[in-house]
Amino acid sequence: MNQEALRTEVAHFLEFETQKMIPQLSIDCVIFSFHADKLKVLLLKGINQEKLNLPSGFIYQDENIDTAALRNLKERTGLDQVFLQQFHTFGKPTRYFPDQLQEAILSLGIDAKKADWLFQRFVTIGYYALVNYQQTNPQPSLFSEGFAWEDVEDLPPLILDHQALVETALETLKKDILTQPIGLKLLPDNFTIPQFHQLYEIILQRKIDRRNFRKKMLLSNILIPLNEQKAIKGHRLPNLYRFDEAAYALSLSGEVKMGF
Amino acid sequence: MNQEALRTEVAHFLEFETQKMIPQLSIDCVIFSFHADKLKVLLLKGINQEKLNLPSGFIYQDENIDTAALRNLKERTGLDQVFLQQFHTFGKPTRYFPDQLQEAILSLGIDAKKADWLFQRFVTIGYYALVNYQQTNPQPSLFSEGFAWEDVEDLPPLILDHQALVETALETLKKDILTQPIGLKLLPDNFTIPQFHQLYEIILQRKIDRRNFRKKMLLSNILIPLNEQKAIKGHRLPNLYRFDEAAYALSLSGEVKMGF
Repeated sequence: MNQEALRTEVAHFLEFETQKMIPQLSIDCVIFSFHADKLKVLLLKGINQEKLNLPSGFIYQDENIDTAALRNLKERTGLDQVFLQQFHTFGKPTRYFPDQLQEAILSLGIDAKKADWLFQRFVTIGYYALVNYQQTNPQPSLFSEGFAWEDVEDLPPLILDHQALVETALETLKKDILTQPIGLKLLPDNFTIPQFHQLYEIILQRKIDRRNFRKKMLLSNILIPLNEQKAIKGHRLPNLYRFDEAAYALSLSGEVKMGF
Repeated sequence: MNQEALRTEVAHFLEFETQKMIPQLSIDCVIFSFHADKLKVLLLKGINQEKLNLPSGFIYQDENIDTAALRNLKERTGLDQVFLQQFHTFGKPTRYFPDQLQEAILSLGIDAKKADWLFQRFVTIGYYALVNYQQTNPQPSLFSEGFAWEDVEDLPPLILDHQALVETALETLKKDILTQPIGLKLLPDNFTIPQFHQLYEIILQRKIDRRNFRKKMLLSNILIPLNEQKAIKGHRLPNLYRFDEAAYALSLSGEVKMGF
């Protein structure tokens, strides 16, 4: 998008859309996927910005916050029909648009007075989603010139408190691992036990004994073995599995068993 | 508080305080305690209101949302030094002050125009707390003529979506039971295993086998037995215990063990 088209879009947004929206309240989306043995998060590259940002947006006065989260994610990334889950609301009194972003917007020739709405303090509601990397094809739009899937364990510099948002989302995944089908949402359709093990190590943020993990998962009945992999040049590849979705759903009872 | 004093307070709030606050964003507190074998929640009785309400309030422009939650709880109930935990943000587009409450405020002789701030749609951030019933002495103030500890399993009619807030807070407790010292916060200093069992049944919302629960808790090393109760008229009373706080903290590792 060229500068002139962007100026028109931003000016229209400030002139006509902001008056229909709740002021000082935004939404940020942390979109996770699993690829090349790493847990990734979807980040956008703002026009003329060095730091990356999460897909974000605002809430219309007549809109449910959950609906607003889905709409904003679609508008910013093209992603649709994604399972979004609210995880935390962030409200430090210093949550203002960073100076550099304010400058970039004003440098478009936007009336500073009209941009005031955007430059107030914002409280933001965080949502996370789990998407299948292979089936996901993000299409960034307004404000972004590109996107990147970045490793959660090695994030580049992010604007505002977006790094803390990713970390809090990850802490939530850790708690939700007993009740959400995290493996099903993040792993490819056919996967190996080492991949599943790796995903669990990243989310639980600790080493997990490989043999115990394999044994427990094979005993759980949530895995369906596929055809054996053939040996290649004498190396035996790990077997492939897919999830028994009904059994997986049953195992996520939403209740903590705790041995009684 | 009489009508005239209340009118002065409300008028002052609308005239001078609201302009320093974030519009359309509020805080609600779900305060749990355990008493007489029931899980209770603290509710306030608004002046001239039939339905009860949770302690609520607003956020100053220069205030962290967590600080605002503590301040509001103190202002509404007198409770201080309470462990408050954010659990969910509620944002239906129909979250407006109920008509009856609007009427009650206007009936004080408040200028309707000035009350507009209060009568907008509000998104609310929910916080929960666990308090010890015996050590808690709430002191309701502005807007309230009294309070009640009501049984979460048998709530009276509440305003707005406050019942849904209590239910969501309870669902959060259920998930947090592995990572938060819920027993320590809610039970009296000295308690019986049947009390502990009852609390777990209410929070997990299911029957728990008494013998398994007792066995598991005695094996967990988090309980310190106190002196045996004497038999009264041939009935043996249950033994009393207190928590080994260090062992309890250790058992709440924040990580899900899942057998590996």
